[in-house]
Amino acid sequence: MIQLTELGKRAASAKYMVQRLTTEEKNVALAKVAQALVAHADTLIEANALDIKAGEEKGMHSGLLDRLRLNKERIEGMAEGLMQVTELPDPIGEVLESFVRPNGLLVEKRRVPMGVIGIIYESRPNVTADAFGLCFKSGNAVILKGGSDAINSNKAITEVIRQALKEAGVTEDAIQLIEATDRSVTQEFMRMKEYVDVLIPRGGAGLIRSVVENSTIPVIETGTGNCHIYVDASADLEKAVSIIFNAKTQRIGVCNACESLVVHEAVKGALLPRLAEKLKEKQVEIRGDEATREVIDCIPVTEEDYGTEYLDYIVSVKTVQSVEEAIAHINRYNTKHSEAIITEDTASAEKFLNEVDAACVYVNASTRFTDGFEFGFGAEIGISTQKLHARGPMGLRELTSYKYTIKGDGQVRG
Amino acid sequence: MIQLTELGKRAASAKYMVQRLTTEEKNVALAKVAQALVAHADTLIEANALDIKAGEEKGMHSGLLDRLRLNKERIEGMAEGLMQVTELPDPIGEVLESFVRPNGLLVEKRRVPMGVIGIIYESRPNVTADAFGLCFKSGNAVILKGGSDAINSNKAITEVIRQALKEAGVTEDAIQLIEATDRSVTQEFMRMKEYVDVLIPRGGAGLIRSVVENSTIPVIETGTGNCHIYVDASADLEKAVSIIFNAKTQRIGVCNACESLVVHEAVKGALLPRLAEKLKEKQVEIRGDEATREVIDCIPVTEEDYGTEYLDYIVSVKTVQSVEEAIAHINRYNTKHSEAIITEDTASAEKFLNEVDAACVYVNASTRFTDGFEFGFGAEIGISTQKLHARGPMGLRELTSYKYTIKGDGQVRG
Repeated sequence: MIQLTELGKRAASAKYMVQRLTTEEKNVALAKVAQALVAHADTLIEANALDIKAGEEKGMHSGLLDRLRLNKERIEGMAEGLMQVTELPDPIGEVLESFVRPNGLLVEKRRVPMGVIGIIYESRPNVTADAFGLCFKSGNAVILKGGSDAINSNKAITEVIRQALKEAGVTEDAIQLIEATDRSVTQEFMRMKEYVDVLIPRGGAGLIRSVVENSTIPVIETGTGNCHIYVDASADLEKAVSIIFNAKTQRIGVCNACESLVVHEAVKGALLPRLAEKLKEKQVEIRGDEATREVIDCIPVTEEDYGTEYLDYIVSVKTVQSVEEAIAHINRYNTKHSEAIITEDTASAEKFLNEVDAACVYVNASTRFTDGFEFGFGAEIGISTQKLHARGPMGLRELTSYKYTIKGDGQVRG
Repeated sequence: MIQLTELGKRAASAKYMVQRLTTEEKNVALAKVAQALVAHADTLIEANALDIKAGEEKGMHSGLLDRLRLNKERIEGMAEGLMQVTELPDPIGEVLESFVRPNGLLVEKRRVPMGVIGIIYESRPNVTADAFGLCFKSGNAVILKGGSDAINSNKAITEVIRQALKEAGVTEDAIQLIEATDRSVTQEFMRMKEYVDVLIPRGGAGLIRSVVENSTIPVIETGTGNCHIYVDASADLEKAVSIIFNAKTQRIGVCNACESLVVHEAVKGALLPRLAEKLKEKQVEIRGDEATREVIDCIPVTEEDYGTEYLDYIVSVKTVQSVEEAIAHINRYNTKHSEAIITEDTASAEKFLNEVDAACVYVNASTRFTDGFEFGFGAEIGISTQKLHARGPMGLRELTSYKYTIKGDGQVRG
């Protein structure tokens, strides 16, 4: 097995080759990789069978086994994803700003790749191809550290991609996989600041916390979403019920699902019984405060509930006297991901948009729209919940940095 | 003394007030603070005298004592700096992008403050006022942790600023100073992720490293500069000598000073003796490789020299056979700050601009221009040497983040 520092050195060397590739060269290579994945579907499914067997033997939950499984259709999906990336505009080389200083220096701010991107992720093996595609198109080399549950699948996918890159005349070290699965290697990886320019964890709250605590590489935090929907006094209750039902139940295990409701006292009587009735369709458990329990039968909410991302058919309800109180509650308990207000009042809407501290703030729409595809970015590597660098859905542009180039004719500083 | 978590809570609460201030309100408050600093000059000088006395008693180096000293002129300089900030455009509220999705959702990307900025800095007390001014104008609350050597000065400056803010009707917690000077407090501060959105260390390499190693708050690394100047085969040697002399000697203790030369074999004979002669004017010590020593008398260079930011009248010289070799050498040893090529050849220049990995890359100009004022930003909080978020000189815009606001009319995800 290759040592981590060797992997780092190879990536640091590969990044200079990847950043010099033209858009055309990158697209041709991506198409070759897509073809190769489909052509080697049997090999990939065989490798995946080892992971599935190991998962079954250790009694893995059926939902997780399903996420882990590769079949022909999913492999074609991975290939299709890469082909979609070929159609996205290349962010590299764009001149973001350009100005001439009084001393004649021409300063240009140019978009450039990050260099080497590290990604630590959990069990879905399709992330291996998806993450490679986005990092590569944005001119970066990538080092991947997948979950041990998917190690055979990830190794097989990476091998196919590397072989296809080689055939396309591109350095195969544009993608490298860390094959060791012990935790100490992950710890070491997080401290490879010399070789890795940014680290993106993708997975549950525990993984993200561990990376933030231990990494010396700059991190982009992604994907924990304790998202709220606030129903204002002036809300259209029809919209409220339909948006809450969508945001809570359309897909429960995702970071942009609604986990908590905040309801203005003035509408609780009209809204909550109707909403409870609707949520019964999906057996959603409601946990409400005292004022909620005056109008519907439900489980008492605890302080802990307000801070919990359930990822389940459960929702908490807090009642408030004003939009100010709603904003304060949300800013206290949210994870800075996606928050919505349902209101027909422009002043409340503007106040909420301005004062709620989150990547995406909605008026009269479902929080489920926080997504690279829904935003029109064509793809996403994750949803950033931090304020440094990128916030919200991250597409190709968010995987880039910039540099200043300055052209002179002998200028010195006085 | 106030507990750190209490400071954090106050800042987290103050940030919502600061971000709501209008440009006019911020400018009025800044002007009041500037007046107050000048009006209380005697108090500040008195407090500063305690720091100077303590510094002298512990045998502080005269250069450091000078950096620490406050006098009427320097206090007026601080006030003038704040007045300059009032004239800079307010970055907050700018709509960076706006688009309507096919489903009718109106998405706007708006520039917003970071929230709470933490700054850890070493002994110059004027940073206290400078950092406050930039953070405040960009809508942020700031928590400052200055060096223990300047604690009395920093406390006095902060007190004057807080009093002036209060009189301007602005929350005084827009600026808070950590008064404890023991290291354990700094360690605790770096982990106050719940309250602080970004941490900016300003100081020597040791401070920066400690923050990167220990912080769980996202960090912007600033200010270490092992800057190179490469003299190409086609260089105008007149320009080369003048630019190198400027970048090396105009001010030695700064991060954008030149520390290392890379010289093409083809010009070493014509350049180096002439350059050595010029550098003698300032008693610059040259440390050269073997090929260098064939044409001038100098100290042999070591591997360690290539990686050293001298901040002194010393320069290392490495000879190369090609622009490619120069780029590889620079990318290996630089700190991603500022790098320059001296050349009359457009192809070499473009290659260098594209392939050198640094925040600022120059053609035929001194690296000393990497500076917020020289770039026309009006001010700077520091020079970022990382690729995440901001790179190079950071002005007001670089102290901001963005959020997406999405306006709908009942849209749900299908």
